[in-house]
Amino acid sequence: MAHITVNEALPGIRSLLAFSPLTAEPLGMLAELLLRSDEGLSKAERELIATYVSHLNECFYCDQSHGAIACYYMNGDNNIVEQIRKDFSKAAVSAKLKALLNIAGKVQKGGKYVTSNDVAAAKSAGATDHDIHDTVLIAAAFCLFNRYVDGLAANTPDDLSTYAPRAKQVAENGYGKHIFTATQPVPGTH
Amino acid sequence: MAHITVNEALPGIRSLLAFSPLTAEPLGMLAELLLRSDEGLSKAERELIATYVSHLNECFYCDQSHGAIACYYMNGDNNIVEQIRKDFSKAAVSAKLKALLNIAGKVQKGGKYVTSNDVAAAKSAGATDHDIHDTVLIAAAFCLFNRYVDGLAANTPDDLSTYAPRAKQVAENGYGKHIFTATQPVPGTH
Repeated sequence: MAHITVNEALPGIRSLLAFSPLTAEPLGMLAELLLRSDEGLSKAERELIATYVSHLNECFYCDQSHGAIACYYMNGDNNIVEQIRKDFSKAAVSAKLKALLNIAGKVQKGGKYVTSNDVAAAKSAGATDHDIHDTVLIAAAFCLFNRYVDGLAANTPDDLSTYAPRAKQVAENGYGKHIFTATQPVPGTH
Repeated sequence: MAHITVNEALPGIRSLLAFSPLTAEPLGMLAELLLRSDEGLSKAERELIATYVSHLNECFYCDQSHGAIACYYMNGDNNIVEQIRKDFSKAAVSAKLKALLNIAGKVQKGGKYVTSNDVAAAKSAGATDHDIHDTVLIAAAFCLFNRYVDGLAANTPDDLSTYAPRAKQVAENGYGKHIFTATQPVPGTH
């Protein structure tokens, strides 16, 4: 049960967005801008950063949700997602993404943990200012989303099979209003 | 110097919002909705929660900026702001706000730190579901803003006298686009 009265049929953040449709709008817009762009970082890379930060924050709902979306973008291959949760330095991703995941992990601990050396390493692996900006803002945004979900104890489906159908829906339709302000349960929700 | 190339004449988050006007829009909208409402919590109470979380996150820029705005709303009296930074339990604020600051402090550490007892204490002090929702989301949002500012090492004015003029500007005009996408320095900026 959530700490406040929400529609318990809606999973995770969706119940909170339905509770507060006004704030749902900028939150949805932020997710859409940060996660559904292929400028610089691909959609899959952006979702991997979101998954990694959610994993570090131990937010099961966001970790599983965004891991499933990343997996969808990578043609259903879950190995990279799993490896990034375990130890990203061994994952089959670019040196650039590894350097950005290092920065994202620092941001999760706190902004001041990011050093000039971390940024220089990302730049020498090919990251642009925009890539670094987006990485820091994605990591910071998931420090918001994770705390929003767990700070209000939103309902977290523990049946892992429910995440893939919602991931497909987000991957195909985005983080728009139609999802964030839904008041009816979506398929796969219990 | 920031980790990425921004307009160094703009202080703190403003340089980042000018760097990325697209994401500045939802961030500004979120700040406006969460901090410029008197529904349930007053504007001053909302800014005090923002200040407290920024102080815990050791984000000097946000701590000073939002402390100055809270002070402006309280007719220039800085005692409450200072006391909340030091020990909110001794501040001259309501029992309800103290219970909500306790929740905000838990959210700063991580969403899961908020307990049913914390929420029950806030409710018995008169907090509504909306007050609790807004407190958690303000605290979570400042875990984003603080990390955005410090994760990119945005320019932080250390001259405390520069914060009050900007606070007046925000208190009178809000967190709208005119501030967040400004490309010219604002008064008091070095």
